[in-house]
Amino acid sequence: MDEGLKRRALRLLTYGVYVVGVAAPQGRNAFTADWVMQVSFQPPLVAVAVRKGTTSHAWLLAGRAFSVNILEQGQKDLAARFFRPLHRVGDKLADVDYFVERTGCPILRDALAWFECELLDAHDSGDHTLAVGRVVEAGVHRDGEPLTLRETGWYYGG
Amino acid sequence: MDEGLKRRALRLLTYGVYVVGVAAPQGRNAFTADWVMQVSFQPPLVAVAVRKGTTSHAWLLAGRAFSVNILEQGQKDLAARFFRPLHRVGDKLADVDYFVERTGCPILRDALAWFECELLDAHDSGDHTLAVGRVVEAGVHRDGEPLTLRETGWYYGG
Repeated sequence: MDEGLKRRALRLLTYGVYVVGVAAPQGRNAFTADWVMQVSFQPPLVAVAVRKGTTSHAWLLAGRAFSVNILEQGQKDLAARFFRPLHRVGDKLADVDYFVERTGCPILRDALAWFECELLDAHDSGDHTLAVGRVVEAGVHRDGEPLTLRETGWYYGG
Repeated sequence: MDEGLKRRALRLLTYGVYVVGVAAPQGRNAFTADWVMQVSFQPPLVAVAVRKGTTSHAWLLAGRAFSVNILEQGQKDLAARFFRPLHRVGDKLADVDYFVERTGCPILRDALAWFECELLDAHDSGDHTLAVGRVVEAGVHRDGEPLTLRETGWYYGG
């Protein structure tokens, strides 16, 4: 397989941009994620691929829940705040306006919409874990168009 | 949980539009899919959620492989050709220009780009199966912008 063609093809997959929140006994955290998709209607299940070795990976598995905050067009700066690892930047939620609902995972007031999930399965998936959760609560803050990875000009794929 | 809010929030997730091909001893088939995403860099893994009870579901598991054809902006009509079930419309590939590479799964000449995967895992996922495959071959037919579900005006989510 040609590595260059593989990278080009995989980077043509379409993604949104989300801030995924976790809550564990150790604390709350959030990270920018693109690999998020629904995987069942009944029951409503959503899968998130989470990079192994990160704080959020450990806390998601410890807390067995996650929230997905759907960002709006123009919110690239908000997404960028949740890029870097907690161990380098400290509490990423310190200056962020958020609230919690059923799972305790952070829900950003500035996002377009959100839902939260209870972890159902954690499948080993190469350098990521594929976390599958059941949607237990959801909300929409306002009407608007979601931010896409293409709009940001960033890549996470290949 | 408010069902209406759950549906609205989940429909704000961003997806592309793909034609997923399968090859089994029984034959070849292809279906339109939106729930497709990469789930690992090393090794390169991609997950596709496939509705249970469909011909493609059975043939994907029997053939243990799938191809993902990435459609281009403006190719809504091509996507629509692969919507309906095989048992109602017959051979969906009869009038389609395709070729095969390593896995035998159909690769559409008119798509923007493609890759094909060998099935690694098939996770039970409510009314779908979450098929995870390792990318073994890939190609890009031309430069272009991928078709998004938002462009089509269709929904598959909620």
